Amino acid sequence: MYPNGINNLKEAFKFFPGIGEKTAVRMAFQILDMDKDQSTFLADAIKYAKEKTKRCKICNHISEDDICSICNSPTRNPDYLCIVGDPKDVFSIEEKGIYNGYYHVLSGLISSSNNLNPEDIRLDKLISRIEKNNFKEVIIAVKPCLEGEMTALYINNILSGMNITVSRLASGIPNGADMEYIDPITLERAFDNRRKIS
Amino acid sequence: MYPNGINNLKEAFKFFPGIGEKTAVRMAFQILDMDKDQSTFLADAIKYAKEKTKRCKICNHISEDDICSICNSPTRNPDYLCIVGDPKDVFSIEEKGIYNGYYHVLSGLISSSNNLNPEDIRLDKLISRIEKNNFKEVIIAVKPCLEGEMTALYINNILSGMNITVSRLASGIPNGADMEYIDPITLERAFDNRRKIS
Repeated sequence: MYPNGINNLKEAFKFFPGIGEKTAVRMAFQILDMDKDQSTFLADAIKYAKEKTKRCKICNHISEDDICSICNSPTRNPDYLCIVGDPKDVFSIEEKGIYNGYYHVLSGLISSSNNLNPEDIRLDKLISRIEKNNFKEVIIAVKPCLEGEMTALYINNILSGMNITVSRLASGIPNGADMEYIDPITLERAFDNRRKIS
Repeated sequence: MYPNGINNLKEAFKFFPGIGEKTAVRMAFQILDMDKDQSTFLADAIKYAKEKTKRCKICNHISEDDICSICNSPTRNPDYLCIVGDPKDVFSIEEKGIYNGYYHVLSGLISSSNNLNPEDIRLDKLISRIEKNNFKEVIIAVKPCLEGEMTALYINNILSGMNITVSRLASGIPNGADMEYIDPITLERAFDNRRKIS
């Protein structure tokens, strides 16, 4: 029904997760409504990002160079290594400016439902990095969920023989949250991990 | 904070109406997660659509040829001309398969708030087309809203001297709608335009 140009765009926008037929059609028409400069910039940005973005050879974070700017920085605290499950998490933590150590990005989390084993998420690379460096503490900052817990336990087991502190980000009630909207697992964790007011 | 590739993508996705910082970042990362084939197809589709899509010289609908497939069709009923405010509306009506006449796409609707006058939406092109053809009925199918009503009235005034029926799509309660969710203007119209059950 649509001309080829719109049909192609519609099919292409459906590559985005969660974008269905209707939204894809709407976005296709929005491309036609854009200035030529804008649509060209978008098309070029897609090709540029895909061609130039690679993974840092040390920490597996997104980078346009072989070694990312964090691994290359001389002002980072070499005592700390923070382990995350996704490059987005590095940006989220960096944005807050509350951590100044290094990072290691896993290629996902251990998951029996998605059939992801320790070798699939490249835990070997993490372990050999820890063995070669003198980190004092490894902070596991993967998502607090079943897969995150499994991954954290697995890493903790491997590192237990080494002289290194392994910690996990605290899980509990977020700042300002209403108790009635807290899910039972979070509430249970908040009770289990309650701290004495000193 | 982000590498150039992601920054560019983020800025580019913000060209879409309603897409803000957070969604743009999410979409930028989704591009990185796509297969190279998919992202290349998307980038090429954007350029292709923008280069190949133009407006039909007769009806102003979107087309890849000078004359669109509807204006070119010999099986359309030449008695009817349906006037819409946007090319998307042509696709919406065609999809339902309930109308077989020709179309004319205005370049928007008359609007005092957006400062769109009759000459801005190319009503002259519409009038000269009607003068040169033998349409028996002009069906005004622009959106039922203030701008739509103004546009419909204006067209009706111009065509009132010609020997042609001018009609407007019925406005009222949509099929299956709950009365409690109907806005007051629609309900008023439904009362005003009530029909005798014969």
